[in-house]
Amino acid sequence: MGGKSVSVGETASLSKTISEADIVLFAGISGDFNPLHLDAEYAKTTRFGERIAHGILTAGLISAVLGTRLPGPGGIYLGQTLNFRKPVKIGDTITATAKVTSYDPEKRIVKLETNCHNQDGVLVLTGEAVLLLERD
Amino acid sequence: MGGKSVSVGETASLSKTISEADIVLFAGISGDFNPLHLDAEYAKTTRFGERIAHGILTAGLISAVLGTRLPGPGGIYLGQTLNFRKPVKIGDTITATAKVTSYDPEKRIVKLETNCHNQDGVLVLTGEAVLLLERD
Amino acid sequence: MGGKSVSVGETASLSKTISEADIVLFAGISGDFNPLHLDAEYAKTTRFGERIAHGILTAGLISAVLGTRLPGPGGIYLGQTLNFRKPVKIGDTITATAKVTSYDPEKRIVKLETNCHNQDGVLVLTGEAVLLLERD
Amino acid sequence: MGGKSVSVGETASLSKTISEADIVLFAGISGDFNPLHLDAEYAKTTRFGERIAHGILTAGLISAVLGTRLPGPGGIYLGQTLNFRKPVKIGDTITATAKVTSYDPEKRIVKLETNCHNQDGVLVLTGEAVLLLERD
Repeated sequence: MGGKSVSVGETASLSKTISEADIVLFAGISGDFNPLHLDAEYAKTTRFGERIAHGILTAGLISAVLGTRLPGPGGIYLGQTLNFRKPVKIGDTITATAKVTSYDPEKRIVKLETNCHNQDGVLVLTGEAVLLLERD
Repeated sequence: MGGKSVSVGETASLSKTISEADIVLFAGISGDFNPLHLDAEYAKTTRFGERIAHGILTAGLISAVLGTRLPGPGGIYLGQTLNFRKPVKIGDTITATAKVTSYDPEKRIVKLETNCHNQDGVLVLTGEAVLLLERD
Repeated sequence: MGGKSVSVGETASLSKTISEADIVLFAGISGDFNPLHLDAEYAKTTRFGERIAHGILTAGLISAVLGTRLPGPGGIYLGQTLNFRKPVKIGDTITATAKVTSYDPEKRIVKLETNCHNQDGVLVLTGEAVLLLERD
Repeated sequence: MGGKSVSVGETASLSKTISEADIVLFAGISGDFNPLHLDAEYAKTTRFGERIAHGILTAGLISAVLGTRLPGPGGIYLGQTLNFRKPVKIGDTITATAKVTSYDPEKRIVKLETNCHNQDGVLVLTGEAVLLLERD
């Protein structure tokens, strides 16, 4: 591992259903107990009408694509932008996709467009990732 | 909750020690099984010399400050930029701080500078958050 | 933190929906695998007709109010009485409330009435907490 | 199951090592993010000098003895008193013991003395449990 290369236009993706358990565990490891995520009665009173997943939990799927598939091990995560477009509800299946938009083989810096869509094809999260590829 | 206001310059923070359990659980809910986080033998061969926390796991502490303290419940997370500056190691205690940099009471859009420091005061993660404050 | 004071009559509360994930995780960390909580077929044969949450899991919400809100950090938990009045079912949203009933500023001992109600206002758990407040 | 009987003097116990993972998970399911349990730097400034387990987490071991061994399935948990005597630290192995102190076969009410000791034999938690035994 390490020393790998990537090509502009390359894509990879990963899908996962977001469960109530994911939300409970993310609350535990982050400390984010916002009732929008954990209190069904409160969530009913909001514009969403029900509990939604933490945005950063959904971003975890982007981390998974980058860390395991493209570029995978050997990539050092330098930055990520996140635009939360639509809510992710319990039971939604999210597909995170990363697509290489630029690669500088000298500096070994790769940029990727990162999007998350739900099972209905709705874009829920979009942004850009920047990674450094380790040399061998 | 909801209908709240914020002032430019307001700050809030939250601290947490990052444990191996956090990393295992984040791997489980995100699917990010990059060996840099989970394989001590592999991690020894990298520039970090040991397993480090997932960057998005550290970002979870920013989510916690925003979701529970400033602005707290009633804030709708619209966007976040993340610049990963230094690795977070198992046992590091991270303090996430959010500081309001602008607030548009008309559009109810708040922007915050979001930083994470370790127990030695080293900046490990920096970025900006944008939220919409719900009306009552 | 530490050195804080409280006033008789002060109250604080916290709400959370009890999920199946909470029950699974509580079983895992406590070892309480009573089938009433984990075996839907067994639970059907009991007076409750379905799986219910562990009583001590519900008591965790009292711990959360005391540990994070009233009195919050700096309180040393000395004792708690728990009377389990009604079952808590999966999907119930429980509100734990703590109310200061006495405070001895000399000994720094605070006593609180601690109650948990479900989304229908039914009292499911009641008791008393005793804490020592740390000096600065 | 159900319809069981118990005898005064009967005892049962269960042991478990308290890990950092238990504390992280308990924080997640309860919402108790008191820094005494999760922030190593804060904990150093307290009388305990290090992170300690949530008291109600230790009480979970009592729940486990009652729910799985004595009286086991068929017991309905009516009440519990808890006196937190000494801190439980990460890595401590706690043995929870329950001993029947009275049993009313008419009303089917059983009372048990419930104690938790650490690996050095120090009593960390003591109290009394009351349960109703289901008829067949």
